[in-house]
Amino acid sequence: MDDGLTSTFAALADPTRRAILARLALGPATVNELAEPFATTLPTVSRHLKVLEEAGLVVKERTAQFRPCRLEVAPLEAADAWIAQYRAFFGERFDRLDAQLKTMMAKKAKEGE
Amino acid sequence: MDDGLTSTFAALADPTRRAILARLALGPATVNELAEPFATTLPTVSRHLKVLEEAGLVVKERTAQFRPCRLEVAPLEAADAWIAQYRAFFGERFDRLDAQLKTMMAKKAKEGE
Repeated sequence: MDDGLTSTFAALADPTRRAILARLALGPATVNELAEPFATTLPTVSRHLKVLEEAGLVVKERTAQFRPCRLEVAPLEAADAWIAQYRAFFGERFDRLDAQLKTMMAKKAKEGE
Repeated sequence: MDDGLTSTFAALADPTRRAILARLALGPATVNELAEPFATTLPTVSRHLKVLEEAGLVVKERTAQFRPCRLEVAPLEAADAWIAQYRAFFGERFDRLDAQLKTMMAKKAKEGE
């Protein structure tokens, strides 16, 4: 039943984890490099990385000596496809306001005739 | 610091809650109507609805007698905008494979000359 979306969304439900992904979008980084900008301990960052790895959003390179982490976007693509189903509804409230405004303006224009 | 994304993604990290949103995309529904397709109890569905309400994804109408629930897409728009930052990387692996394939084909063509 679970298609990976649950673990993807759960992994994204944390500001530190989203910041780690933003950093990795610039290029691979070691755990130490990733921990630097955060006012937190290395074990905390490692724990966040573990969640991201389990969700398939981060991969640790096996070849390089320092095993840098890199971003893996496939789960984000799946999350994007899920949200895309709702895109038809986006901006709906503004469309409604726009329609109301047009009706009001048409009415005013008619009154001014 | 938290811009609502954390509660949005946390709310989406559950298959029942995603199914509730999919049902509400078809139109407003009462809690009883929402509970029907799920092999679960009414309190469980109510608990999921509470999470969706707190994330601003579901609104309970105050006017109608049965207080139907309706979908509110604004948080999904924000989540979509966040994921959009990574769209440039989508299909990257395929681009890489495509480039490899072209190199191989060019090499083969050269060998055949």
